[in-house]
This record gives sequence, C-alpha cells and structure tokens, in this order.
Amino acid sequence: MHLIVQKYGGTSVATAERIHAVAERIARKRREGSGIAAVVSARGGMTDELIRLAQEITDRPPRREMDMLLATGEQISVALLAMALDKLDVPAISLTGAQGGIRTDQMHTKARIRAVDTGRLVRELESGKVVIVAGFQGMNEVDDITTLGRGGSDTTAVALAAALGADICEIFTDVDGVYTADPRIVPGARLLPRISYGEMLEMASLGAGVLQPRSVEVAAQHHVRIEVRSSFNHNPGTIVEEVGTVEKDIVVVGVTHDANVVKVIVADVPDRPGLAHRIFAALADAGINVDVIVQTTKGEAVTDLIFTVSRDERDHTVEILERISGETGATRVEADESVAKVSIVGAGMVSNPGVAARMFGALSREGINIQVISTSEIKVSCLIAADAATRAVRAIHEEFELGEAGSDGAAGESPEAEPQGTV
Amino acid sequence: MHLIVQKYGGTSVATAERIHAVAERIARKRREGSGIAAVVSARGGMTDELIRLAQEITDRPPRREMDMLLATGEQISVALLAMALDKLDVPAISLTGAQGGIRTDQMHTKARIRAVDTGRLVRELESGKVVIVAGFQGMNEVDDITTLGRGGSDTTAVALAAALGADICEIFTDVDGVYTADPRIVPGARLLPRISYGEMLEMASLGAGVLQPRSVEVAAQHHVRIEVRSSFNHNPGTIVEEVGTVEKDIVVVGVTHDANVVKVIVADVPDRPGLAHRIFAALADAGINVDVIVQTTKGEAVTDLIFTVSRDERDHTVEILERISGETGATRVEADESVAKVSIVGAGMVSNPGVAARMFGALSREGINIQVISTSEIKVSCLIAADAATRAVRAIHEEFELGEAGSDGAAGESPEAEPQGTV
Repeated sequence: MHLIVQKYGGTSVATAERIHAVAERIARKRREGSGIAAVVSARGGMTDELIRLAQEITDRPPRREMDMLLATGEQISVALLAMALDKLDVPAISLTGAQGGIRTDQMHTKARIRAVDTGRLVRELESGKVVIVAGFQGMNEVDDITTLGRGGSDTTAVALAAALGADICEIFTDVDGVYTADPRIVPGARLLPRISYGEMLEMASLGAGVLQPRSVEVAAQHHVRIEVRSSFNHNPGTIVEEVGTVEKDIVVVGVTHDANVVKVIVADVPDRPGLAHRIFAALADAGINVDVIVQTTKGEAVTDLIFTVSRDERDHTVEILERISGETGATRVEADESVAKVSIVGAGMVSNPGVAARMFGALSREGINIQVISTSEIKVSCLIAADAATRAVRAIHEEFELGEAGSDGAAGESPEAEPQGTV
Repeated sequence: MHLIVQKYGGTSVATAERIHAVAERIARKRREGSGIAAVVSARGGMTDELIRLAQEITDRPPRREMDMLLATGEQISVALLAMALDKLDVPAISLTGAQGGIRTDQMHTKARIRAVDTGRLVRELESGKVVIVAGFQGMNEVDDITTLGRGGSDTTAVALAAALGADICEIFTDVDGVYTADPRIVPGARLLPRISYGEMLEMASLGAGVLQPRSVEVAAQHHVRIEVRSSFNHNPGTIVEEVGTVEKDIVVVGVTHDANVVKVIVADVPDRPGLAHRIFAALADAGINVDVIVQTTKGEAVTDLIFTVSRDERDHTVEILERISGETGATRVEADESVAKVSIVGAGMVSNPGVAARMFGALSREGINIQVISTSEIKVSCLIAADAATRAVRAIHEEFELGEAGSDGAAGESPEAEPQGTV
C-alpha cells in the first residue's frame, strides 16, 4: 500500500477550525487509498502555556518532570484530531509517542530517537485506521516520557517514515516551503522546488526554521523523501531528497539568518593542548550545541576562544564555563547577544572558489563589519551586528541573484518532474 | 516503613499556591519518616476545559479518545507537584497511571481497576522518593489509556493503598470530612469522627460527594483504612473502617440528598417474565447505573417500571429504551428531572423497625409528597420534588437528632482513640 507520513505543526492544529481542515485533508488522501500516519505537534501556544505553569512552581524544574508536563500538549492534539476524523467517519486512532513505539535515549528535554518499534503502528495501519502519533515525545529505557527538543515533531515524522518505509514524509507548516531567504525579510525570495539533504541540513541549522536539523540528518541517513509544504493551501512545496549532479553555476541555494545566537568569549585561555577539548566536552556533556568556533592567539601564550550558542543556552553555558574556569585558566567569560549569524548555503560551493569572497564583498559594500567567519564545504557563516542582519541578507540575496528563476535550473518545473534534477 | 497513601483532589492543586501547600504537607510527613505515595487529580476546572475542547470538535467524541484527552489533566498535576517537591529538596517522581501500574478493564471513560502492578512503585519508594501518581487513569490490556469515571482518583488511591499494604489512605478534599448531612444545607450538621464501610458506601452512592462509591467498595474488600480530611487545615477528619458492634440507639448516621437524578418511567410494559431483565441488562451493558427501581402494576397485565439514573446518563438511557421498545412493548418512555433523592443511612437500621416510618412522618409533617420509596438493609431513599429537597433534609436531620453529639457515642473523641468504637 502507498503509505504517507504527514506532520502537522502547532499552527496547523491551533483551533477547532484548523483541526477540522487537517482532518479533511487527511480524509481526502485516505479515501484515495493511501495509508496515513500523521504526526502532530502541540497546539500553537500550548507549550508556552505549559512552560508558564512550570515557571509558576519553580525556576528550575527537573527536566524529567518538564517532559512529563510538556508531553501533554501533543497528547491533547492527537486526541482532538482523532475525534475530528471520527466525525468524518474515517477510522482513526491516536497514540502517544510511547504507544507509537518511539524509543529514545535518556537525555530529557532533548532526547534522540534510538529506535521505532513499529508493531502497533503496523497493526493499526493494516486494520485500515489513520494512525495519529504525538510528535516531539518518546519513551526511554526505563519507561519514562522524554521529549525531543524544539521542532522534535519533524524528527518523529521522519523517523516514522523511515521505520515504516513510507513513500514520502510531508511536513505541513505555515509557509509554502523552503525559500532562498526568509520572505518576511527579502520580498523577492523564491520558493525552492528542490533541495539536497546536505543543503537543507545547513539551511535548517543556520536559522531557516522550517525543519529541525536532526530530522534532516535522519532523513538523509534513511533516504526519506521529505516535502515541506503549507497546510493552508494545496500548492506543491519543497522536495528534500538526494540530489545528483550539481551544476557549477548554481553554487548558492539560499541565505539564512539566525538572531537566536549569543557570542560567547572565553578570554585568555592558556595556549595548551587539551584545554579547548576540556571546554567543548563539558558543553557537549550538557547537551549544548556550539557553532562558529574560532580561536585567536593574542601572544603571551594565551588565546581567546569564541563561539556561538543559542540564546536559551546562554545561562547554562556561562555557568558551566565559570565552573571549569579553574581548570581552563580562563580569566573572563563574556556573552554578547547583540549579534546575528548570516550564512550562505550551497553544495556547489566546494568546487567554486571565490564564493565566500563575493559574500564578504556584499557585506563590505553595505558597511557591515564581520566579527567572526566560519566555513564548511557547503556554507559560509558570518557573525555580524544584530541590527545589520536584514540589510546583510538582502545584499547577499541580491549579490547571488537568488530571486531570479534563471539562477536555479529547476525553477518553474513541477517538483515531481525530474527527481534527479539540478538544484 | 510506615507508608501513607494520600489523595489530593482538584481544588487542592488548583493554583500554584495550593500546589506549594500540598508539597509542604507532603514534605513534613516525609521528613517524619513515612513513605508517601500521593495520588493527584486534575487541577480544578481542567477537566471541564478539556471536555470543552472536545465539544468544539464533535458532539460525540469516541470514548477511547476522550480518555486520551482527559488523562492529560492529571499528568499536568503530577508533574507540577513533583516540581514543587523538588523545589523543597524532597526527592520525588511523577508517574502516569500506566507507569504507576494501574491496570484496568476495557470500559473507556468508566474503567475498573483490575490489578496494580507495584514493581516500579515499590522501587521508587524504596529509593526514598515520594511517588506521585496520576489519579483517575490507568492502562488496559492493549496499552490504551483508560479513565475511571468521576471521582476515580479516590479509587486509584485506595487501590494503591491496598496493593502497597499502606497503613492508611488519606483522602484530602475541600471539606473537613463526612457529615451527618451537607453542612451547606443543614447548618447544624455534625462531622462524623468514624463511619463503617457499608454506611460510607451508601452515603457516597446517595449523593454525599466526598468519596467515589467504587473506592469504598475496594477499601472494604481489602480492609484499607481511609481518612477523609481537609487539605486546607490540619484537623482530623472522618475515619472510614471496619466497625464492630453497632449500638441499637444510633440507627441513623446521616442524611443525604442527590439532585443529580432523573426519574425514568417506562410505561405500559406487558407484565411478562423477562422483560424487566431485558431492560436492565441493556442499561447495564451500556454501563449505566440504575437506582431506586419500583414496579407498579396497573391492571390489564401491564406495568410501569420506574427508576432513576444520573442526569448525564439521561439521553443515553432514553435512547437505549426507545431502541428496545419493540421488544419490551413499552408505549412510552419519560424522563423527569424535577426530582431529588433524599436518603437516611445507618447500619443499625436493620434491627430497628420503625426507622423508615419516622422518616416518612418527618416528610409528611413538612407536606412533602413521596413519589417513590426504595430501601436496603442500611438505607431508606425517597424520591421527592427537587424544590423540596432542602426542607426534607433539614426535617429528617432534626427528626433523628443528628446534630446533637449525644446521638453518636463516638462524638468528641479523637478518631484515633478507639478504632473499634461505635458509630
């Protein structure tokens, strides 16, 4: 049977009216004969409301108990969606993450999926039911509820699609797909009909909030074809998949910006082997993601270590760095929120020298100072002043002519037309 | 170790302030050395809010999905209470009904507990943690979430106390205990320091809403000592336990009234064996509780069957009776909500003739017409006009001098003083 995994985000189920619309969409596909497993997030605003309840009780809720609390958000969504399908006479059953077989590791509030036990899912699908699984949550080895971190429902959906061998994983959201830049900032931004896993991973990691980066990793690993599309219309969205040959003249697919960063400076670390490792291992153990790492030697055998973390990790990061300052010898830890990260992404970059230089040139012409640069094979990121981010993104988008269909060989085609086409 | 099971109702955890107060109470007991398992209900208003969400989606939510939805209410409560205990540095862990080992039958929205798998509960208690279990919910054989019906958290608490061999099961509520009558109606109502399981069961079934009747059944069966008391003060409450000899002059312990009743009349049923069975079996299969059954023969070999159900079962009951009217031959089904049930309860009644007559006399002197009478060994119930209920309860309370301490041999004693005392 043709099997589709669909994921609906919080805005897609925020009101009774929206839930009915989602149920109608599922019902139509089901009546066409496809098997459907739908993954649903907490209703818009619900997670924030639960966090507020916890904060009324304590500043530092234990992470295990936060997971117990937050998991109720998705549980409410799946029950309501199952009711809406029942009203349409479409047999459906809701499942918590645990019932849906989502097994995770022990890291509460940012657990990783270790396995999907598909026994019950397959049974319910074979009996003809639409299966509705609570996103964002799972169960660890000791039968405790875990959650997967912000955007975790995407990963639930991709993991289910992989485990069930689904034909496609449709991620429904409140935008039409993946754009060359944030359309709220760059009016000429263009919808990408197709993007590779690698590029999507960088885009997602660098602030294009349409997919949780971890979900793209899982998709790439298991060759799950993703379509990112809107739950508010029936337009085709962006297909994320393995992409073949990359045309050399389409080096940059998109520009991202991320305001959710803090620049952390660990000052005057003695220039001795092992100290950087000590610092980043301590942060990794706490589950803190670090990006854009640079090290500057200042002479006198001390260096400044500079890197970024997300804003909600700021306090935790500073606390850890101060705790280990006796070992690292750092004289000072600074956290600066007045920065933003702008990046260009494109798989063609590796074989096209001079791409980074064009980006720096665009920023320079705008009089924007680059504080820190970080590159990989398929991206270049610059840390700049937060208040220059919009100008920076527009200038870079223009420099690489991303708004023009001609810049992308696949533009204007149906995304179904040529799965192995260029990006 | 001395082990206490405590149950906190919805008003006891309705606000952050109340949750902190409950945590303080638990912390004090815990520091005195007792092991504690706390069962918690959904926060006041939460269940109604969830029901409202379901009603926004559909008039007839599937019962399985209602359970999925409603179970989130208690899950939120237990997580928040565990956070509050953590803040007091009291090790604690929250568990859903399923995690707490509450195994039930399949009857969604009014499931019965079949077993308590105490493995994890014992492990967590032995590790020194306060265990906080979501009341009202459990898991059935196919790992689906079930709920136990209104007041089900009481039954969760008693079942846990039985399974764990707890020394006492304390039911914390917003009243001081069990009274001779509802103090809001009878200002002279007296707190009962002690009551037998049988009497408590009748009181609870007849409208004294302090305990779910099912919880009293389970307590009687497993000899679980219950104390009903207030979470708003530290006064002793009412002990519910096996009671020995019953003094003949204390025949009536309390008067109850229940406005949540509908009088159902099934008119002109042919007077043939098996028809009454057909009717009540159909209602029992639907899980509808029937009370105060009477049958009146009208000549011509037809009878009227009269009984009561609770108001929320009204529509379901009428629907079933109309569906089987072809078999029963009934010409008419009526449902009358303008009634109330007033009852007297007392284990001494069985050996004291004339008690019912005194009740009828009190109603007669007030000019209150009795529509239907139903008696058991330890109670007499009368169906009367709803608007006469308050006058009826006051008159009966006065007739049996229930407000006077002298009417109860145990009054004024500490409830701890003489566990086998009279009632």
